[in-house]
Amino acid sequence: MPGHERTYYLEDLAVGMVFKSPEHVLDQAQVIAFASAFDPQPFHLDEAAAKDTFFGEIVASGWHTAAITMRLLVEGVPIAGGVIGSGGEITWPRPTRPNDRLHVICEVTQIIPSKTRPERGMVRAHCETRTHQGDVVQLFIPKLLVHRRPMAITS
Amino acid sequence: MPGHERTYYLEDLAVGMVFKSPEHVLDQAQVIAFASAFDPQPFHLDEAAAKDTFFGEIVASGWHTAAITMRLLVEGVPIAGGVIGSGGEITWPRPTRPNDRLHVICEVTQIIPSKTRPERGMVRAHCETRTHQGDVVQLFIPKLLVHRRPMAITS
Repeated sequence: MPGHERTYYLEDLAVGMVFKSPEHVLDQAQVIAFASAFDPQPFHLDEAAAKDTFFGEIVASGWHTAAITMRLLVEGVPIAGGVIGSGGEITWPRPTRPNDRLHVICEVTQIIPSKTRPERGMVRAHCETRTHQGDVVQLFIPKLLVHRRPMAITS
Repeated sequence: MPGHERTYYLEDLAVGMVFKSPEHVLDQAQVIAFASAFDPQPFHLDEAAAKDTFFGEIVASGWHTAAITMRLLVEGVPIAGGVIGSGGEITWPRPTRPNDRLHVICEVTQIIPSKTRPERGMVRAHCETRTHQGDVVQLFIPKLLVHRRPMAITS
């Protein structure tokens, strides 16, 4: 993966290991563009219309926060073969706002080698998406599929 | 919400109620555009490069499936005040592929009136995103915030 000095296989990971992503700077144009395509509700689309809603201001779709988080994980968590998730638990403790600067802190919490597929395993992580002010805007606890290092063939 | 004959407040919902969304037709250009912005990994971006990956073919980002699902929920689940989620559990049983046609079936599974905020409550639902062939590509179990119908003011 370009930009990373190394990539991590299952045996390179350990519980407690922490990855930190680069930062993404959000703005209102991005919020509106994402919402127009995927979450066209007044509180994501229009400042004036948002005033009369639950949020009272324009906020990013939770799925936009999730999508930005994925981008930051791809940039910040250099797993060999890619960041491949089968799902997880997601929570948005507070909405993401235009002009928030986001980064992700991801800690490995569990490593489960596969019993039936010796070449891979499952990794649980605790991934917080935080603003530049330290507020947590998303907590994602994914299950990631991670490969073991391929065996060297010797003759 | 335009296109809906009615919108649903908390007291209009009941456990077992099912909503069905319209359909979204995916294609490879959408898959690549989403992945370029939010999940730039070879198995989402390029047919030839995808062959050497875990998936062996180009597949949509799980977050793209999630984003399309949100769009279909906004179109298909007419909750008064909007579809507002605080999070949930998400699983992708199989990857979404270009040319899948997607719809969402959402069943209300739990209704929890707020003890401290009489004007609203929390609703749990079981939302399956399915292809035209009936395969489930995403299961999402959200917690939704739903308002009660405002009281009429009488003098």
